[in-house]
Amino acid sequence: MDRNTFGNLLRLTTFGESHGRALGAIVDGVPAGVELSPDDLVPQLMRRRPGQSKITTARDEKDAPDILSGVFEGKTLGTPICVIIWNKDQRSRDYDPKFFRAGHADRTWEEKFGHRDYRGGGRASGRETAARVIGGAIAEKMLPDEVSIVGFTRQIGEHRAQDVPEDLDRDRVDQHATRCPDLEVAARIEEELLACKEQGDSRGGIVELWIDGLPIGLGEPVFRKIKNTLANAMMSVGAVVGCTLGDAAEDSTKSGFDFHAGKSGYGPEAGISPSANGIQGGISNGQRIRLLTYFKPASTVGEMSKKGRHDPCIVPRAIPVLESMAALVLADHFLEFQLNRLQDLDRF
Amino acid sequence: MDRNTFGNLLRLTTFGESHGRALGAIVDGVPAGVELSPDDLVPQLMRRRPGQSKITTARDEKDAPDILSGVFEGKTLGTPICVIIWNKDQRSRDYDPKFFRAGHADRTWEEKFGHRDYRGGGRASGRETAARVIGGAIAEKMLPDEVSIVGFTRQIGEHRAQDVPEDLDRDRVDQHATRCPDLEVAARIEEELLACKEQGDSRGGIVELWIDGLPIGLGEPVFRKIKNTLANAMMSVGAVVGCTLGDAAEDSTKSGFDFHAGKSGYGPEAGISPSANGIQGGISNGQRIRLLTYFKPASTVGEMSKKGRHDPCIVPRAIPVLESMAALVLADHFLEFQLNRLQDLDRF
Amino acid sequence: MDRNTFGNLLRLTTFGESHGRALGAIVDGVPAGVELSPDDLVPQLMRRRPGQSKITTARDEKDAPDILSGVFEGKTLGTPICVIIWNKDQRSRDYDPKFFRAGHADRTWEEKFGHRDYRGGGRASGRETAARVIGGAIAEKMLPDEVSIVGFTRQIGEHRAQDVPEDLDRDRVDQHATRCPDLEVAARIEEELLACKEQGDSRGGIVELWIDGLPIGLGEPVFRKIKNTLANAMMSVGAVVGCTLGDAAEDSTKSGFDFHAGKSGYGPEAGISPSANGIQGGISNGQRIRLLTYFKPASTVGEMSKKGRHDPCIVPRAIPVLESMAALVLADHFLEFQLNRLQDLDRF
Amino acid sequence: MDRNTFGNLLRLTTFGESHGRALGAIVDGVPAGVELSPDDLVPQLMRRRPGQSKITTARDEKDAPDILSGVFEGKTLGTPICVIIWNKDQRSRDYDPKFFRAGHADRTWEEKFGHRDYRGGGRASGRETAARVIGGAIAEKMLPDEVSIVGFTRQIGEHRAQDVPEDLDRDRVDQHATRCPDLEVAARIEEELLACKEQGDSRGGIVELWIDGLPIGLGEPVFRKIKNTLANAMMSVGAVVGCTLGDAAEDSTKSGFDFHAGKSGYGPEAGISPSANGIQGGISNGQRIRLLTYFKPASTVGEMSKKGRHDPCIVPRAIPVLESMAALVLADHFLEFQLNRLQDLDRF
Repeated sequence: MDRNTFGNLLRLTTFGESHGRALGAIVDGVPAGVELSPDDLVPQLMRRRPGQSKITTARDEKDAPDILSGVFEGKTLGTPICVIIWNKDQRSRDYDPKFFRAGHADRTWEEKFGHRDYRGGGRASGRETAARVIGGAIAEKMLPDEVSIVGFTRQIGEHRAQDVPEDLDRDRVDQHATRCPDLEVAARIEEELLACKEQGDSRGGIVELWIDGLPIGLGEPVFRKIKNTLANAMMSVGAVVGCTLGDAAEDSTKSGFDFHAGKSGYGPEAGISPSANGIQGGISNGQRIRLLTYFKPASTVGEMSKKGRHDPCIVPRAIPVLESMAALVLADHFLEFQLNRLQDLDRF
Repeated sequence: MDRNTFGNLLRLTTFGESHGRALGAIVDGVPAGVELSPDDLVPQLMRRRPGQSKITTARDEKDAPDILSGVFEGKTLGTPICVIIWNKDQRSRDYDPKFFRAGHADRTWEEKFGHRDYRGGGRASGRETAARVIGGAIAEKMLPDEVSIVGFTRQIGEHRAQDVPEDLDRDRVDQHATRCPDLEVAARIEEELLACKEQGDSRGGIVELWIDGLPIGLGEPVFRKIKNTLANAMMSVGAVVGCTLGDAAEDSTKSGFDFHAGKSGYGPEAGISPSANGIQGGISNGQRIRLLTYFKPASTVGEMSKKGRHDPCIVPRAIPVLESMAALVLADHFLEFQLNRLQDLDRF
Repeated sequence: MDRNTFGNLLRLTTFGESHGRALGAIVDGVPAGVELSPDDLVPQLMRRRPGQSKITTARDEKDAPDILSGVFEGKTLGTPICVIIWNKDQRSRDYDPKFFRAGHADRTWEEKFGHRDYRGGGRASGRETAARVIGGAIAEKMLPDEVSIVGFTRQIGEHRAQDVPEDLDRDRVDQHATRCPDLEVAARIEEELLACKEQGDSRGGIVELWIDGLPIGLGEPVFRKIKNTLANAMMSVGAVVGCTLGDAAEDSTKSGFDFHAGKSGYGPEAGISPSANGIQGGISNGQRIRLLTYFKPASTVGEMSKKGRHDPCIVPRAIPVLESMAALVLADHFLEFQLNRLQDLDRF
Repeated sequence: MDRNTFGNLLRLTTFGESHGRALGAIVDGVPAGVELSPDDLVPQLMRRRPGQSKITTARDEKDAPDILSGVFEGKTLGTPICVIIWNKDQRSRDYDPKFFRAGHADRTWEEKFGHRDYRGGGRASGRETAARVIGGAIAEKMLPDEVSIVGFTRQIGEHRAQDVPEDLDRDRVDQHATRCPDLEVAARIEEELLACKEQGDSRGGIVELWIDGLPIGLGEPVFRKIKNTLANAMMSVGAVVGCTLGDAAEDSTKSGFDFHAGKSGYGPEAGISPSANGIQGGISNGQRIRLLTYFKPASTVGEMSKKGRHDPCIVPRAIPVLESMAALVLADHFLEFQLNRLQDLDRF
């Protein structure tokens, strides 16, 4: 029963309470021979961590990853990789065990378990996602070089990026603290979030992921389609309230004639649909997957928020988390991909 | 590796090609003692099947369910329940193995497996969902009486239901062939779909599910939250391109002050948020879960569609399929619910 | 929760009560492109079925396998393969729901489930193993040609085969109804079993499996070692009370000097131990795996046995069942074998 | 793909190389509210660790368990429990990467993974079992008080305990360093092992487990019978070469009349068989489970052994490991036990 484990052949288990001794990740299913060092984990952890800019929380989490197992002489062993991040900035005195915050997991968790770590949300804290970023960074090392996963802020509040360059990469996304690549819109978002911070207000938004470089054929029918495994991954992140392939809200209003532009017919090019956003029959079609993930406004508002240790909008910091979840899903599908055709099983 | 199996403690395996000998379902994990007969399976199968009205395809699938195992003297045995539906209306002569339909799984499936049943999509056919409806009908028998799952057409094309009664049930939904409970909007949808049928055009839309009567506490942190297990279920259905908790596209634009209306504080009522759409920290909060599922326009358009064996819009017939997937998810969470507190484990 | 499903990447689900409508198997995880027809399933089903000789029960089960899905134009599709065997010879009038047979599952099953199919043991019947033989026959089609799995009667009662030819195959095993390849011992066993039949007595014994032709490297540390997955498979069969790698009862008494004959050292030959019976560190070492499986005396004795529909010893008929379970385990390990080294993942 | 994870609802993941930074365990599936502290883990870790007596290795592993997550204010949270043991005594200079030891995993591991931690066997080391003992100690905290699991040395070399008191407990077992409760036999074993140590010879043997206090009804048909889950657990331990329910080697030679003493018939007592060793139809029958686990002679013999850091026989130290594996299996079955009858599901 995989409450705290994600994935099929590549498996991430996360553990640790936000104000406990440590949090960590076990990644199992990585083949032997993948080069891996703590340095591979740091970049995405840095992109996720609080305190990166004036629009994020002032909490300072160092999040230095400590690899305890599964790597030897710089390469993976094919055994479970355990990575720990020690908790330092705990401040548990801020928390009152009998106070239940609206919009949070306090009440439901209490009713479910009868006993909970009330300090900062325990495992319901966003801090748990640091372990996912570790898992994602390891998964990315397994992906072919031509695969890229790039997320960016498509929308925060009512401000929606219009002008997004086709050749986006993570550096370009990081040019603005909002991670919105439409810099004009980014400026408006930043202004709004600063105002939110002052007022104790919050905002939601949309992260868009672009996944490029996939071959045709990833995804297992019928219950491990690439679209539901991705949606499952995204929706498992706190504050996420929706996940759509392309802009489903808009696409669902279109006529079939307008929407379906692909060519039916004979020959190697036939049957691929540009409107499919990269997935047909649940299987990758070799084109870009466009995935939109929707966030509700951050739950901590008012006086509680003004104390200053909460983001007015988690969308920018959530981007590496979603990229990580996507990387885990894709690396898993690449492993599964080995198993589908008799002629591909070299040793059979 | 659960390609064709759905669920955790309650497990549905579906099998069968659309034009093969039969399709079927194995449901494992149902406790002993649940009353079950083929009559329990018929209503939702009837709601799913083609040929129900002038706006659906003329194919006539009888879909009479045949229970082969797991039931004895009218009650489940706690053993796997196998249910078969024999295929009759096969017409495989319509299909050309070298022709790849756009918007379908033909090409991706061919590239993935190298060998496929090209007759009607094989397992990528919507016909596979009949097995899901069988699973869902069995799962519903396990749910407490106070739980209800009702889906309806929120939108087809650009027509969106505005006026939906709070006390909706399936009979009420079925009063109109479109399954849109706003009858004024329903009439406009019907008109549009009849026009589509004539022109070979198609439409997408949105199914909204209301899940009522849940206790507080369903859903397992962190990777089996009720929200991601539901999204996973919905997105595993063909033609589904998105799933959101409430109207995420709209909610993601709101300010936190407007969105979050719940009361933080002390005592048994505190910490529940009406804006949470029934889920906090991934766990049910005892309120209605509102789930929206987005469909792209049906993929078969133009001359191929006019031949008359395709729905111009699958939204109405998809409703029992989505209800079934939700029932499977919820029955599974009810089983898991038994396992979380030492004091609830009677025999420990 | 895999109560009725066996395996990891290759998964066999069995269903059906012994006196219900049908019993069957779903095999999922078979790659596309494996040639398969009902004729591939018949030989082992014939070797398992009752009524083969005067020393087995007179029940006549035809066991003609009906493939409902997963195969198209003579090859597997990569989708679930469902195979059904219809029940015909039911005679449920023989059974009394309130009578609990010693040595059987009647009482424990009643206490566990509260509701059971008391006719012939339901799913606790040996008849369930027909579905395993179907699974095993499919698994064997996936194995490389050089792999062979041959089981034979090593012992029945106190009669133990001494003289067993090294180049044993299934035809040779089948030369005698007892499946004991030491024909002198076989004759004594037959005589004893005929006496048992007359008296209503029964015997247990030992099946020995020889698995040859494996490469070095099958088996996943630490909880999917080849030795525990094989033992798990064997011990899941009714009436089996033990499973040992080689003759463990004897080996456990030896001195290390006598037992360990292998050469430690340098170079490609070093480190392989003949005394390991084919498994080192849980991983195949390229040599023969010798596996002994112990059966208790058949449970039906006395008057009940004399009615004539019970084997005095199930060892001979159990051989194809154990071979099938071993084939499932090995085919699964062959699939897993693809996933361990980065350099073997062609598409990474 | 659960290479390094054991169990179904209660899941133990072990990680760590024997000469790496640390080894550890994640236990997931423990309900909230179980009292747990490091002190609960120490006793069995102490019983497992080397250097306990003159007949064991002189290596000194402190094995102090460090609980990193899942416990708060002395009770489990229902979240993953991570426990670490730091490695100190590494001495990796003793190991030569190109030298392959016979009887060990060196060669098979090298062939399988291409890259391995050659220092002391990596994860193939017996040291990995410390993590299993942690898991087992946690599992024991979940078991009802009336359940007891006691293992003892039934045999080492050719010396077999004859006189074993019925009311054995762990303290009594520990009265002699050999853990053989027949003290006369124990003395002979000790003498023989001291001679082995001097000569560099080694011995195997048999551990017998007695499991008492189980209710009727544990074990899930057909692939999670209590007998195959126990055998799977035992056979996953290094150096184990067999597992039998009772003395299968002996029982397999008996006549059915002699073996089957239980009463068939009507009424609440009927159908229970004393000869079943506690399991009928794969399900516990409320009587003692007697399980024998066979060990081959320890693999390190000759000069390598005389260097003094190897046990001449691992049987005595393996006892807490086997008890731990059994506890994990049983606690898992107790969780599954909740799910089988509709009337037992309180919230349905």
